[in-house]
Amino acid sequence: MRAGVWLIGARGSVASTSILGGLALRAGLVEPTGCVTAHPDLCSPALPGFADLVFGGHDVVIMPLAKKAELLAVAGVVPGGLVAALGDELDAVERELRPVPGGGTQAEVAAGLMADLVEFRERHGLDRVVVVNVASTEPGVDPHPAHAGLDVLTAALDGPGPVLPPSSLYAYAAFRAGCPYVDFTPSTGARLPALAELAEARRVPYAGHDGKTGETLLKSVLAPMFAMRNLAVRSWSGINLLGGGDGANLAEPGANAAKSVSKQRVLGETLGYVPQGSTRIEFVPDIGDFKTAWDLVTFSGFLGTGMRLEFTWHGCDSALAAPLVLDLARITAAAHAAGRSGPLTELAFFFKDPLGDVDHALSRQWDALRAFVAGLG
Amino acid sequence: MRAGVWLIGARGSVASTSILGGLALRAGLVEPTGCVTAHPDLCSPALPGFADLVFGGHDVVIMPLAKKAELLAVAGVVPGGLVAALGDELDAVERELRPVPGGGTQAEVAAGLMADLVEFRERHGLDRVVVVNVASTEPGVDPHPAHAGLDVLTAALDGPGPVLPPSSLYAYAAFRAGCPYVDFTPSTGARLPALAELAEARRVPYAGHDGKTGETLLKSVLAPMFAMRNLAVRSWSGINLLGGGDGANLAEPGANAAKSVSKQRVLGETLGYVPQGSTRIEFVPDIGDFKTAWDLVTFSGFLGTGMRLEFTWHGCDSALAAPLVLDLARITAAAHAAGRSGPLTELAFFFKDPLGDVDHALSRQWDALRAFVAGLG
Amino acid sequence: MRAGVWLIGARGSVASTSILGGLALRAGLVEPTGCVTAHPDLCSPALPGFADLVFGGHDVVIMPLAKKAELLAVAGVVPGGLVAALGDELDAVERELRPVPGGGTQAEVAAGLMADLVEFRERHGLDRVVVVNVASTEPGVDPHPAHAGLDVLTAALDGPGPVLPPSSLYAYAAFRAGCPYVDFTPSTGARLPALAELAEARRVPYAGHDGKTGETLLKSVLAPMFAMRNLAVRSWSGINLLGGGDGANLAEPGANAAKSVSKQRVLGETLGYVPQGSTRIEFVPDIGDFKTAWDLVTFSGFLGTGMRLEFTWHGCDSALAAPLVLDLARITAAAHAAGRSGPLTELAFFFKDPLGDVDHALSRQWDALRAFVAGLG
Amino acid sequence: MRAGVWLIGARGSVASTSILGGLALRAGLVEPTGCVTAHPDLCSPALPGFADLVFGGHDVVIMPLAKKAELLAVAGVVPGGLVAALGDELDAVERELRPVPGGGTQAEVAAGLMADLVEFRERHGLDRVVVVNVASTEPGVDPHPAHAGLDVLTAALDGPGPVLPPSSLYAYAAFRAGCPYVDFTPSTGARLPALAELAEARRVPYAGHDGKTGETLLKSVLAPMFAMRNLAVRSWSGINLLGGGDGANLAEPGANAAKSVSKQRVLGETLGYVPQGSTRIEFVPDIGDFKTAWDLVTFSGFLGTGMRLEFTWHGCDSALAAPLVLDLARITAAAHAAGRSGPLTELAFFFKDPLGDVDHALSRQWDALRAFVAGLG
Repeated sequence: MRAGVWLIGARGSVASTSILGGLALRAGLVEPTGCVTAHPDLCSPALPGFADLVFGGHDVVIMPLAKKAELLAVAGVVPGGLVAALGDELDAVERELRPVPGGGTQAEVAAGLMADLVEFRERHGLDRVVVVNVASTEPGVDPHPAHAGLDVLTAALDGPGPVLPPSSLYAYAAFRAGCPYVDFTPSTGARLPALAELAEARRVPYAGHDGKTGETLLKSVLAPMFAMRNLAVRSWSGINLLGGGDGANLAEPGANAAKSVSKQRVLGETLGYVPQGSTRIEFVPDIGDFKTAWDLVTFSGFLGTGMRLEFTWHGCDSALAAPLVLDLARITAAAHAAGRSGPLTELAFFFKDPLGDVDHALSRQWDALRAFVAGLG
Repeated sequence: MRAGVWLIGARGSVASTSILGGLALRAGLVEPTGCVTAHPDLCSPALPGFADLVFGGHDVVIMPLAKKAELLAVAGVVPGGLVAALGDELDAVERELRPVPGGGTQAEVAAGLMADLVEFRERHGLDRVVVVNVASTEPGVDPHPAHAGLDVLTAALDGPGPVLPPSSLYAYAAFRAGCPYVDFTPSTGARLPALAELAEARRVPYAGHDGKTGETLLKSVLAPMFAMRNLAVRSWSGINLLGGGDGANLAEPGANAAKSVSKQRVLGETLGYVPQGSTRIEFVPDIGDFKTAWDLVTFSGFLGTGMRLEFTWHGCDSALAAPLVLDLARITAAAHAAGRSGPLTELAFFFKDPLGDVDHALSRQWDALRAFVAGLG
Repeated sequence: MRAGVWLIGARGSVASTSILGGLALRAGLVEPTGCVTAHPDLCSPALPGFADLVFGGHDVVIMPLAKKAELLAVAGVVPGGLVAALGDELDAVERELRPVPGGGTQAEVAAGLMADLVEFRERHGLDRVVVVNVASTEPGVDPHPAHAGLDVLTAALDGPGPVLPPSSLYAYAAFRAGCPYVDFTPSTGARLPALAELAEARRVPYAGHDGKTGETLLKSVLAPMFAMRNLAVRSWSGINLLGGGDGANLAEPGANAAKSVSKQRVLGETLGYVPQGSTRIEFVPDIGDFKTAWDLVTFSGFLGTGMRLEFTWHGCDSALAAPLVLDLARITAAAHAAGRSGPLTELAFFFKDPLGDVDHALSRQWDALRAFVAGLG
Repeated sequence: MRAGVWLIGARGSVASTSILGGLALRAGLVEPTGCVTAHPDLCSPALPGFADLVFGGHDVVIMPLAKKAELLAVAGVVPGGLVAALGDELDAVERELRPVPGGGTQAEVAAGLMADLVEFRERHGLDRVVVVNVASTEPGVDPHPAHAGLDVLTAALDGPGPVLPPSSLYAYAAFRAGCPYVDFTPSTGARLPALAELAEARRVPYAGHDGKTGETLLKSVLAPMFAMRNLAVRSWSGINLLGGGDGANLAEPGANAAKSVSKQRVLGETLGYVPQGSTRIEFVPDIGDFKTAWDLVTFSGFLGTGMRLEFTWHGCDSALAAPLVLDLARITAAAHAAGRSGPLTELAFFFKDPLGDVDHALSRQWDALRAFVAGLG
């Protein structure tokens, strides 16, 4: 099965690392370190191979992919040797990238997006195309009556004003084109009743939200540890220093608030209560792609004795996210092929803010993911 | 069901905190924070209640329990108010503590230990007595032919020289007296073929080894996280600074080596390979009971990008261990009542170096524990 | 020489710890750990002895000093034994504390403050009284024409509206009463032209601002280290988690901003450039008086190689501040006795945001302090 | 003034980085970040310029300098672009490197070393050549009667057995050839009475020992901070994880012990007492050149309240050491030109274990260094 991976924000750090890594895997130059679907427990013939992924995407920026890859090499995110070795392959993907279509109404823009998706699928003879949003985080969306149902949404999109935020307009176009949609960001994406209705009507699955790559990944194993040991977490405070492309954006009050809620959700749902403290995001350009997250957890043990855990995570966001993008493309493509539609709540393992009322403990999410992949075979 | 808890090392920090906490729970003065058996998933009428535990024990030291409790309060391990409020109850337990019996041969010493256990059980009309070893860590034991079988062991114990290390002699006496045995230390305890034979012959269960209270607890959730994410752990190095009673002992090369092996075992068995690095134990008296463990993990992500996790655990060992001692007494008593004998491999959740060929991921151990407790009801 | 120490905010944590410590030193129960004036280099017969300090103060709250001391003992800030041993002495100081006088105009309030100061000085036959502000941090003050000169200020204070913030009204009253004034907070205090004029007119010295007790203390030795080694600091980011009395106040945007500026000033003035990053203050009640500050410094070495320093400071603010309050009282009293008036820029060693255009490197401030104290003898 | 820099261990990481950096400075490709002599306070026309340094050296290994530089670039220690840009210059230095001369006696080896030094100096018409030892750390030296005086040493070197450790034999040869000698390692070097006698006889200066590049640099500012604040340091424990060339060597018990003593010396001499704790060195190859040092300091404040400071230093040893090597060459050459001979105790700023009975506080060492450099002009 050959599957397309259509990246929204295709010239960004995450997308570029995903593309470079996918090409390197196809060429046999690297091991699939960090790819969850390379774990023995998730091996399944139902998934398209890494080598069967074909990349394309939209972006509003114009920096060539090869140039972006060189910058990532300078920043230590990817090896310079790979960029040099895969120059031709990067140029080939370059030809699959498209600017964001214009239009007088959002319906017209969506039509342009759909045309690009369909043309990509047909030209390459792909079984299907998975659309993955790795664009910048949007602020929270204002409610709009047209979000409530598909008919009213369709009508409203023909009107003059913006009805959907960009991430949702992409989901709309993907679903209309029969493409699964994965939201790797905290943006709204498919989380509107009208879009859920559309996904079911077109029988396409979708997944999200907000790739779990660092601090929240740790929370999803540490919070269950405290819960299983019946230790009382008194406070959990953290700060994220990041300097990469999305850093300036996330440090904006609007996006920051959206992200912070997503980050703390795991605590309340795992512990059964919300400890004191919050998570801050600060933009420090010098930090670059290597995010530093520091957390302090204070907790009480037996007879109320106070104790502390402190950790520092120094991770490269793009290098943590990119393999998961490939994993999600493989699994979502297989789910589509297997006839699954609607929200894929079994993919909570990948997300900070997963769809559905799911367990936030990583081990439970892993169990659900293994069962899901096994069921696709 | 009333159950006895007979503590080897009954005047030490862990035992004293266990006793004080057990008394405080019985008096309704505290919540069972840190007690795993108070977690809703482990509630079972098959377990004796916290209030049904009766304490006794052996120790070679003579400091009164009330004095030890006061010292623990000064050190911030337990609240001073509890010590004051439970003076009479502590004095009552004081009367249940016994010096270690003497004797010309180890058989004679064992007979004295058994007599103390039986007398305690009968005097209080207890259904059973669980023996828990919380004495100082022993160095590794030298092999001896008498360890291989019960007959040869029984004969050898009548001889002049020492055949068993103290922790194993206690296990021998416990089993002979029909008492389950739990080893909360890394010492040899019941881990000898002759003692396994004896436990089966007397139909008593046993559990161990080495309570999982700090750094290894973290490893048991963090190592599976790296494994599930298919991230390659390159090195895992750590240092433990501790100043409490067992600190000087553990920093001795012999005991240190035993403990370090126990601490690193989780990594190899969870990851499937052994990363670089080791764990050091240093004795720093000023640190007192509040152990500080620092670990650095270096790992590779996608395309080989290097990243790091660092954590500092500042935990009070006695306050972390004591509730688990109560948990183990409750569960092991119930297992005995349910007719279980031999090694309780389902209790791996509690131990750094669990009996049997078991999963080292905490979430798997939790599943096994829940199923075990549910099966006792 | 007997000197009074009149504390603004006399029932707060810092003041109570200062009083308890001063009484304990007088009783010979403790060593002067943390007292800079007990360092051999600062010994001088010109300073009043610790035992010669007499305490009094104003506060708007009414919790008895002995009760506050007990709460500090429970929180681990001071030893419970000291509180018990010094009950009579605390009660004696209790009788020296006064509510803040009321009045229709600020002139009337100031008259009440002065009356309290003079009455205290005369009743105890004190050579002088040093007023030390350890009250809560105020937001920045709005400019007012009456701040520009003493005449216009004096006239304006008779008017209906508030002209001076509380910290400055205390400074006004102190100066009018012939008392030196020390501001241990970041509040405005004596930093107004009209008050500088008054201090010179009355020949009294003053000092401030904002006691340097934790993260900034570290910055004042680490930033010079980077400067001396000619290493390029790229970013310096930090977060302060604190839960004590002033924490909720400092986390307010207004006070937070004032404090953050004071905290970053040392970097720009020591390094000669301002690195990226900022300092956050978060209120986490569970942390209590033991503030946790975490800082990340990224820097470039030879040939641009990037490196990092991370530190966590876990300090008890009141226990760090209180001995400095005693030091400042001793030194300022001696300066007054020696005829010094106006801003004591030589005391920069004690402050985050020192008066005057002074060196921010701690070692330079130490040299200045030693010379100053030696010159008083 | 043109000065030679003759590096013992010339193909190692520190030497290679020094050479590459020296060439890059001469070519105007980089700023002198990390070079202390580029600090405005140390500018002096008495020092040879960076561009006036000419490199040569001895090594037992044979890997070409250009190859070593490439490996350093891959490891992130130096920028790959510099290595590419300076290929010709590196090849030119390559031709100045010599294998270690052989010989039947140490006198013969020393004669070969001297011949290389003299030939280098004369061929380049250099005013002088500073010999800098950056070879691997030696274990401590066994006492030998011939160390006591120059005459007996000279005689003994003609004998069959080894009398001097390598670092001292290099110092002997340097002094005999009229060259100043700097020991950047903790090895014995010039620290023998016979060599001190020789240095004075030949009127050459020398400096050492053990470049202060990381954890000890921090100690030299933090320990004085605690001292000035009169805070009681209770324990200071640390661990150094390092994977670079000297790591395996330093983790050997002999060298480790030598290094640890050197690292703790600053504490005792600055604080006036030795706190609990020690410093461990662990070899973790994956860490590479980027050493990670973690330290925990526990201290008491006012009334005995316990507090903690923790820091992690993540520094590239070669990138921290190399600019200091250039600084030491410049300053030592100027000192020789100014007629200085014997131990240069004023250079303590650069060393963990400085010569002479000097202050260990970094700010005092800086004052001494500034005065020294100013006095050379």
